[in-house]
Parts: sequence; C-alpha cells; structure tokens
Amino acid sequence: MRRIGMIIAYDGTSYAGWQKQENGPSIQQAIEDTIERLFHEKVNLMGSGRTDAGVHAEGQVAAMDFIHPIPADKLKLALNSNLPEDIRILRVFEADPDFHPRFQAKQKTYLYRIWNGSVMPPEKRRYETLVDYPLDVPRMEEAARLLIGEHDFKAFRSSGGVNLSTIRRIDEAFFKITCRDLGAEQCREIVFHVTGNGFLYNMVRIMVGTLIEIGSGKRPITDISAALESGKRSFLGPTAPAKGLCLSSVVYGREEQNKNSEKA
Amino acid sequence: MRRIGMIIAYDGTSYAGWQKQENGPSIQQAIEDTIERLFHEKVNLMGSGRTDAGVHAEGQVAAMDFIHPIPADKLKLALNSNLPEDIRILRVFEADPDFHPRFQAKQKTYLYRIWNGSVMPPEKRRYETLVDYPLDVPRMEEAARLLIGEHDFKAFRSSGGVNLSTIRRIDEAFFKITCRDLGAEQCREIVFHVTGNGFLYNMVRIMVGTLIEIGSGKRPITDISAALESGKRSFLGPTAPAKGLCLSSVVYGREEQNKNSEKA
Repeated sequence: MRRIGMIIAYDGTSYAGWQKQENGPSIQQAIEDTIERLFHEKVNLMGSGRTDAGVHAEGQVAAMDFIHPIPADKLKLALNSNLPEDIRILRVFEADPDFHPRFQAKQKTYLYRIWNGSVMPPEKRRYETLVDYPLDVPRMEEAARLLIGEHDFKAFRSSGGVNLSTIRRIDEAFFKITCRDLGAEQCREIVFHVTGNGFLYNMVRIMVGTLIEIGSGKRPITDISAALESGKRSFLGPTAPAKGLCLSSVVYGREEQNKNSEKA
Repeated sequence: MRRIGMIIAYDGTSYAGWQKQENGPSIQQAIEDTIERLFHEKVNLMGSGRTDAGVHAEGQVAAMDFIHPIPADKLKLALNSNLPEDIRILRVFEADPDFHPRFQAKQKTYLYRIWNGSVMPPEKRRYETLVDYPLDVPRMEEAARLLIGEHDFKAFRSSGGVNLSTIRRIDEAFFKITCRDLGAEQCREIVFHVTGNGFLYNMVRIMVGTLIEIGSGKRPITDISAALESGKRSFLGPTAPAKGLCLSSVVYGREEQNKNSEKA
C-alpha cells in the first residue's frame, strides 16, 4: 500500500464543491471515479479542505492510499487523459504513509479576483467578480492589514461552519492590481491575496465582501476591528460570490515537505 | 436612421463563428436577435470580418442601421443585461452614416495564446493551446520577422478562402512571454501578436502552426521565406487550433476614427 499525494487545479463552476455529496457532482468524486475506472481500485481521496460550489483551485492538495504500482508520473498522465478538462492533476508524488493533507496543513493561501470595470470580459466571467464602481484600494489595503495576526474570527463565519475554535492566524493580506484595457476602457484586475493557518466557513468571502464595502466608502475601516473585538457579523459586508475565489496553495511543515520532495 | 458602431468581446467556444449561418449559433445572430427582442427592430449587424468557430474576440467592431432613439450608453447597458454572458458589448457609439467596419478597416491585430507547460490550467482551456514540449522562442521571433512587410501570402491560406488577392501587409509580428507557476512547475504563456492590413482565411493559425514547428526544431526558419516565394502550403505547418486565437483590435483611418470619437 502506497500513500499518493497530488496537487490539483480545477474550475469549480460545474461542481457542487470539492467534497463528495448527494446534491451534485464533486471534484473528489470525479477523481475517485476516474481512478476506479482506470485501475479497478476504490480509493478515498482526502483533500486539504473543502471548497464550496463554484470555488476554484490552482493548488488543492489531496492524498489517498493506493495499491496499484503505476509510477507517479504515469499516474498523472493517465488521470489527465481521462478526467474532464476542468480538473487537472498538476503533480503526483509518493507521500509518507502518515501524510494527511488536512491535519498537517500549516498554511493556506487563497486568491480573490475582482474585475473593476464597467463590463466583465467574457473569458473572466467564471473566475472573477465584477465591481462596476470605483474602489479605493489603498483604503482596502489599510483595512486588510487589520486582519493580520492571531484573532478570533467568529464574526467572519457563515452559519453552517463546524469548527469548534474560531481563532485563526492571518499571516498575509494584501492586494495586487493589474491595469487592463478592454475596448476603449481602462480597467483594473484587483486580486486579494490572503494567507493564514486556517480559514472558517466563508471567511475569505466575508473578508472580501467587507473590503469591497470599505473600498467603495460604504463602510468605515474601523468596522474590521469592531468585528474582531465584538464577534458581531453585523459589522461586516455580504459574503462575496464564490466564483471569484481560488485556493492557491497549501504549505506543509518542513518535515512533511522534505519527505515529499525527497520522494517526488 | 442612425448608424450605430460597437466594440464587442466574445468567448467563441459555444458558437459556429461570428457570421450568421445555418449550421450553428453565431455571435452576429445572438446580438441581432437580442436587439429585435428588446426594440422590435430587425437589424443587420456588419462585422469587421468573420471569426471562425471557437475563435474569440476582445475588440471585434461592428455597425448597424438603427431607428430606435435610445442613447448609446443605455443601449450598451440594455444589450449587456440581455445577451448571454459569453458576449459583451464594450462600447456603443454613433457612427458616420457611411461607416463600414469591414471595408474601412485599415489594420487588425490578432493574438494567439500558447500555454507552454506539461498540463493545461483549467481556466485557460478554452483560450489557449497546450504545447507540452520546449519551444525556442528567440528562433520563433526570428522566423516571425520574415513575415513582416508586404508579401503574397497565398501559401498561408486554407482552401475555402474567398479573397481574390492574396497580397497582404504585415506590420508587426512578435511574441510576449509571461512566466507562470502551476503546481510545482515553471510554465510559460507565450502570446503571438500579429498586426496587418488584412488576413486570409486561417492565415494567423497557419502562421502559428508553422512557428511552433520552427520553435520545436522540426522545421527550418527558411521555410517561411520558401513559402512566401513559392506560394506552396507544403513549406508550412498545420493550422493551429481555433481556441488559441483572439481578434484583439481593429484600427480605422484617422478620418473614421475622429468622426467616431467626436460623436462617442
């Protein structure tokens, strides 16, 4: 028995989320089914965490126990030839028998993409959220800096979250702007980068919904501190749409990383 | 009666091309139908040129005669609220009564996007072509420079082209490279930019199919000159896939431009 690790990218548009579930197709199920079809082996693919319906990934990490002796590189090729094009296996590696992508994750980075212009370019429509009014990004940066550090993020959680502790540590929270031309118009692609040791249910999307309201002037920067101190959801903006969100990368401790890279 | 001009972006994946036709939905038809539904007026939308099935645009130009008095900006909003999300109207302007987007076009720019890595990222799958072997881009640049100038591009044409003259002028032909990380892999996005006074049927895609073979070492740079001199298709590579191609912009003479911008 081997434990196989994978780095996975997907377009979440057509899926009910990462996790196997009754009410729609999932990325986990699509990969497990493909493996069963190709290798006649039922596997359980553990992800680093769930992503919601419509949320994307460019660096989801998952692992499974597997008996078949196919080399890692060949497995990657076989999967990419048989999976739907909206799921791609970027890397397959031999992992430690005790490698657990969820419990051993030390840090995750999410990106949230905003198209700031009057019209959404067709090729971005599944991956970005349109904001068609001006945003004061330096003001949003200032607000984002208040998120950094260890805080109780109780206010930044949708009901339905199952985590017992709501304390998380945010290590980085910043924006990157790229100027774009579209037709005769100057537009901006504004990408929120956030890295932390873990995220509550809808936490990034609530952060972004709030930062957009701060950027438009609808909400004061101090609402971030007020929400962190009081734990009250009412200091925060709406949950931003799923389609702008992308799980970018998951970092593991040096020990797990070294083990993985030695064997890769 | 007004002549209305438009700049249009579309994702060509789900269409049989720009032009109205029997064998599938077209972008032209989708816009004409939406206008008829909203304003009860049958229009004929003339494009700057056809794009094939699967080819995209970020700056197609079109014009129509129109009676309804709705202001240009309102028309843009109304269309974008009612068109499918893979077609967006970037700009609507009052054009000169004799403005003709095809006959008056002075220059067009096309982009062709290549993903140079082992795996196609899901969000690029409709807009880029995967090349999973190394490409020598400086060599491709050298070959592309041979295309610049006025030449008989007879060899660079698929059968089915209707143009009488095969002489065209290429003003610019170059590559832009962006380095990208995907999973653990360093990838490159290689975009071919080509500007000319007109293009024959499949001309850009045959250029790109040939430049890729030159970049992989399969074909000598001199095949470009040989094809231009002899007019023989056999000196050239295959027609590159439609999905990598995008009509980026159309330039009109100073006269038409000034008239349009004055009225915009």
